[in-house]
Amino acid sequence: MDACALLGGPKENWPADLKERLAAAKAAGQLLVGVDRGALFMLEMGLAPDLAVGDFDSLKPHELSWVEDVVPDIRYSVPKKDWTDSELMLGIAFEDYQLDRLKLYGATGGRMDHSLINLFDILNPNLRPYANQVSLEDKQNLIIYRNAGSYAIPQEGDYAYFGVTCLTPVRQLTIKDALYELAPYDGDYLRSFTSNEFLPGKADFKLSLASGSVAVVYSKDLIRFDQV
Amino acid sequence: MDACALLGGPKENWPADLKERLAAAKAAGQLLVGVDRGALFMLEMGLAPDLAVGDFDSLKPHELSWVEDVVPDIRYSVPKKDWTDSELMLGIAFEDYQLDRLKLYGATGGRMDHSLINLFDILNPNLRPYANQVSLEDKQNLIIYRNAGSYAIPQEGDYAYFGVTCLTPVRQLTIKDALYELAPYDGDYLRSFTSNEFLPGKADFKLSLASGSVAVVYSKDLIRFDQV
Repeated sequence: MDACALLGGPKENWPADLKERLAAAKAAGQLLVGVDRGALFMLEMGLAPDLAVGDFDSLKPHELSWVEDVVPDIRYSVPKKDWTDSELMLGIAFEDYQLDRLKLYGATGGRMDHSLINLFDILNPNLRPYANQVSLEDKQNLIIYRNAGSYAIPQEGDYAYFGVTCLTPVRQLTIKDALYELAPYDGDYLRSFTSNEFLPGKADFKLSLASGSVAVVYSKDLIRFDQV
Repeated sequence: MDACALLGGPKENWPADLKERLAAAKAAGQLLVGVDRGALFMLEMGLAPDLAVGDFDSLKPHELSWVEDVVPDIRYSVPKKDWTDSELMLGIAFEDYQLDRLKLYGATGGRMDHSLINLFDILNPNLRPYANQVSLEDKQNLIIYRNAGSYAIPQEGDYAYFGVTCLTPVRQLTIKDALYELAPYDGDYLRSFTSNEFLPGKADFKLSLASGSVAVVYSKDLIRFDQV
């Protein structure tokens, strides 16, 4: 089963068609997951989450009551805790619900401490085995994660660029069939190879790494500079 | 000497009073640095950068001419390169200009591959010795970096929260005199300890680490949820 989760990040960073995406996901039988205020955001769109996770401490009592009345599975976290709400959600999604793929929205923008957590939760050793099954999208970026292995990474939507960010030490990181190829690279720090592009006529580029984990960041420009 | 650098990130993410901040910095004798489109943004504010760095490939010819007419020190990067424009700028700032402190603006928002580079440039082993001298601010976040050592981290402005993110493996990471204390923590992955708060009546919290590098992320909520 696939799922879409909405976190509490600011609406200004959401994909413009998020409501339609979530409605289509629900219609296709996917699980909808609301994290903290994201559960309320879903209800406000007229979509009932199947699962809600969080401490919900930013919700007013009548907002929390609405969530509790509608959502069949609610997991309460405690404010002072070892796992963040989004880590907790990822654990439930993959261990209790045995999800195949999970797409995160509302994960970026606003408070940077929240964005960094949402971007890097998957590095928790308990969650890292699921990294390849997680993606994250906002109005301008799509992020996927890849543990060691060899992959054909497809073009997606209207994203013009991609970058590859080393999230851990990596060995033999290689990029082929792209505008900028990368010869096998060994590195020990958080480094990004960015502003790369798919080759005309190629539907994918080839990514491989012998060890470590990377993020592939698809991105696009929202503003044409000559229109500014 | 201190300096302020403006990168090419979207204006919507800038601190609201950026123009006033840069004008005050210039009046105080600080160096102004424009990176790529950031150099043009400064000129559009009526402020002449002292140094401009980049490949300037998003500038139209008359825009680039303006930069070249006004800016006394221009360093051109090449599009396909090992160092990013912002890494190059950091190297010039600390090695050629021997800066004491450098504050980055326009580093976040928009394309995530750019934001990740700007956030983590300082991990380049050639730049890491300067980490403690760099900060980065947008409309909602202030980020500083700390290599191994013991520090009193002061409250800043109206930032209500702080988080500490491990950017490398860390040993003996400790947080004291804060709402959530952290007993000496050893960790090997990019983990954030977040939504922490300064204690009432305390002007700082105590941070120490025996090895590794961390970011301290100050943040604030821009929207009061009960006004949404």
